[in-house]
Amino acid sequence: MQKITLKALAEKFDLELAGDPDHVITSLATLSAAGPQDLAFLANPAYARELPDCRAGAIVLDENMRERWHGHALVSADPYVSWAKIADFLRPQPRPQAGRHPGAAVADSARVHDSASIGPHVSIGAGAVIGKNVVVGPGCVIEDNVTIGDHARLVARVYIGPGCELGKRVLVHPGVVIGADGFGLAMDRGRWIKVPQMGAVIIGDDCEIGANSTIDRGAIEDTVLGADVRIDNQVQIAHNVHIGDHTAIAGCVGIAGSTRIGKYCMIAGACGIGGHLDICDHVVITAMSTVLDSIDRPGQYGSGIPARPHAGWKRILVRLGQLDDWARRLRRLEKTSS
Amino acid sequence: MQKITLKALAEKFDLELAGDPDHVITSLATLSAAGPQDLAFLANPAYARELPDCRAGAIVLDENMRERWHGHALVSADPYVSWAKIADFLRPQPRPQAGRHPGAAVADSARVHDSASIGPHVSIGAGAVIGKNVVVGPGCVIEDNVTIGDHARLVARVYIGPGCELGKRVLVHPGVVIGADGFGLAMDRGRWIKVPQMGAVIIGDDCEIGANSTIDRGAIEDTVLGADVRIDNQVQIAHNVHIGDHTAIAGCVGIAGSTRIGKYCMIAGACGIGGHLDICDHVVITAMSTVLDSIDRPGQYGSGIPARPHAGWKRILVRLGQLDDWARRLRRLEKTSS
Amino acid sequence: MQKITLKALAEKFDLELAGDPDHVITSLATLSAAGPQDLAFLANPAYARELPDCRAGAIVLDENMRERWHGHALVSADPYVSWAKIADFLRPQPRPQAGRHPGAAVADSARVHDSASIGPHVSIGAGAVIGKNVVVGPGCVIEDNVTIGDHARLVARVYIGPGCELGKRVLVHPGVVIGADGFGLAMDRGRWIKVPQMGAVIIGDDCEIGANSTIDRGAIEDTVLGADVRIDNQVQIAHNVHIGDHTAIAGCVGIAGSTRIGKYCMIAGACGIGGHLDICDHVVITAMSTVLDSIDRPGQYGSGIPARPHAGWKRILVRLGQLDDWARRLRRLEKTSS
Repeated sequence: MQKITLKALAEKFDLELAGDPDHVITSLATLSAAGPQDLAFLANPAYARELPDCRAGAIVLDENMRERWHGHALVSADPYVSWAKIADFLRPQPRPQAGRHPGAAVADSARVHDSASIGPHVSIGAGAVIGKNVVVGPGCVIEDNVTIGDHARLVARVYIGPGCELGKRVLVHPGVVIGADGFGLAMDRGRWIKVPQMGAVIIGDDCEIGANSTIDRGAIEDTVLGADVRIDNQVQIAHNVHIGDHTAIAGCVGIAGSTRIGKYCMIAGACGIGGHLDICDHVVITAMSTVLDSIDRPGQYGSGIPARPHAGWKRILVRLGQLDDWARRLRRLEKTSS
Repeated sequence: MQKITLKALAEKFDLELAGDPDHVITSLATLSAAGPQDLAFLANPAYARELPDCRAGAIVLDENMRERWHGHALVSADPYVSWAKIADFLRPQPRPQAGRHPGAAVADSARVHDSASIGPHVSIGAGAVIGKNVVVGPGCVIEDNVTIGDHARLVARVYIGPGCELGKRVLVHPGVVIGADGFGLAMDRGRWIKVPQMGAVIIGDDCEIGANSTIDRGAIEDTVLGADVRIDNQVQIAHNVHIGDHTAIAGCVGIAGSTRIGKYCMIAGACGIGGHLDICDHVVITAMSTVLDSIDRPGQYGSGIPARPHAGWKRILVRLGQLDDWARRLRRLEKTSS
Repeated sequence: MQKITLKALAEKFDLELAGDPDHVITSLATLSAAGPQDLAFLANPAYARELPDCRAGAIVLDENMRERWHGHALVSADPYVSWAKIADFLRPQPRPQAGRHPGAAVADSARVHDSASIGPHVSIGAGAVIGKNVVVGPGCVIEDNVTIGDHARLVARVYIGPGCELGKRVLVHPGVVIGADGFGLAMDRGRWIKVPQMGAVIIGDDCEIGANSTIDRGAIEDTVLGADVRIDNQVQIAHNVHIGDHTAIAGCVGIAGSTRIGKYCMIAGACGIGGHLDICDHVVITAMSTVLDSIDRPGQYGSGIPARPHAGWKRILVRLGQLDDWARRLRRLEKTSS
């Protein structure tokens, strides 16, 4: 990492400087590990307890935390956002060289921009279009007629099915499968027959898809992610789903077919969302909940149950089985007492 | 897609024609998007609300819906099945050419049928047998002594472990791992030791396995899927599991070791099924349920809890913790009042 | 498999022999399938019901089971451990030859030990270090500056991100992604911006990672697995998580960011564990539980609900919605009766 003064950082990122403008930062670290040449940040107030022992050269923090810290500081209205920008500036992601690895298998009719980087063991099908500065990492498979927008990056071992489209600056992590067939089956005299999955997957600009997530192609129309949708690892998105702009979905979530999720939603880890539902904008679903009904009001929803010591939980399970009986007993008591 | 008249479709698929036999279909679409040259279908009665505004050239529907639609129709006892067959006929899946990509690494002792298509960056191990018209897509890894039945298709980046067998017409989507080691461990004086996983995975004819699903090899005997088993994405099937013919399993389900699931079962999304259980034929498990006991009667079972607004759900969680106390209070009241 | 006498097995594995020392074993089998030349084992007492009909040539069992079986036996204090060792000895895992497949793409600056086996379609980045007897199977992607310890095995199609380190004898199954970016996002005036993920993943000696599992790199510091940690398939481990030595995690578990899990914990299948928690040593979490609070006492915890017949479960769901009302009614009754 380059060396930089606090003054230079404050000016570049439009932050208020509290302390020595000439203090030099050479690295980034957590509050607990930072030393005199490290920059750290404090966004979650719970970590303010670490300030007394902190040895950081400087901390990015907000106005409220400023008086609790006597070292150098960069004061920001949103320390986490400032930290993200500073870290991206000081430790930029290395970008592989433009050009095509000789071990890639690229169809003659594919149009690959000269500035793109195509890694080893990549397959690119007929009619595919690979935009400016795109990175297609090792082992990716891009099927026929796929379009990849400028500056997108497929890290490694990503699969993109026929006819799917990724917007600009989309980032796809290893093991992702976009555009496999949806789970469409019809029972025909005791045997399943496959319902052809003829739609594609369309992914808007600035989306990020986490490792080993899967997004199925639509049955007739397309599966669609808006712009700036952020998907964590091992998320499953079934056919025909639509997800609105700026929605974030944490790890291990599954969304069943034909459900529509609005903009600016946040879905916590390991939730299951049923099929054919409509979830409006600005909905928050808490961890490990099961959504089986449409939601038409913004707000927070959930059904996850926090774990307890085993003996107590087993008693609750027994009580659950008795509730029906309790309902009768309660009614009977009320009759008697009235 | 080829053009075709309603008359030709009705004859080919044995459907009753209501309307103009010479009307020409050039494409397939949903009820809401279809125009005068499109064929649509109506199988789920909930979508009948779209009929008044529908502009489709013709609709595949059943006898009950026929009078609610005044355009051309193809009347079927099972519109979804008819749709699947028509779509498969009009929009057949393209099949890659027979032959071996020069970038594939095929062991000398592997027997690959001349009609098979072996894509780029494929590895095929010693003693493997690849049947007639099999497609092994880009980046697949087929280990030693694997057998792949005629007309099977491994779309891309599929892994098949040593000695596993896939039946005829099996379809495996990208990222699937068949035949990794089961999770077999023994605790030996404070350290885990690995229990060798010596069985294989045997998959019957006409099965379909969704993207990024995993099926572990058996510990001593084999993990077995019957015929026509349909598995969605990100399903985990542990060692020694047996799954009966025609059972369908939706996305994100996990099945623990040595469990046996019957025929014609349907397991909805994100369920967890414990180990060493016996689930009989014709069992339906509803979404996000936990199955911890064997089931010996056909029918529907579940334990998923639909999400509610956060405040209400938090109150219910508090109440759950009070149930034990309520039981005592209820008993005391009953004594007092009797 | 080689032939071996019971006497030779008893001596090699320090077991007590009950029966004919010269009886020859030629294969391994389950209790129910074993014939006169097969060795079987009995560890779970539930399977003792199979002893009367068992035809095995010999059984590995413990002192308690010995009198219930009249055939030859190898008596062990821990039959499952003995079985694991015998099976590993009699059916050793074949090891691919040392050397580099010509189709591998290995950076000039990577240091690959001569005894390592590098399969087809492998990519190894600049500065990577591959230890003694390491196996890197087909289609693996190893990014820049990764270190792989001696005797480790990456079975196939494994991804290891830049700068990550795997200890000695680590076993990684197909489809695993180690070192993808953690899910770090900051909301900046209505758009997400990415928080750079600058840490790595450090995995201790003797760990095993199941198929299609994902372990994200740390945000600033590293994500760390101790020694002898055992992870099943499709497990998701988020950034900054620490997992203690000898902990075992079953399939489909998700662990959110910055959580610390102790030593010798056992987490059953499909659990969700929240972020920023501390779970102490020797904690057992039962299947499909949601952990949302730190745990500071060893023991068993859970919140999974066993599935019931649908009608009964639906009634319980209705009752859950009435609990708040019941609380009031119960209080009112108590007032009346007092």
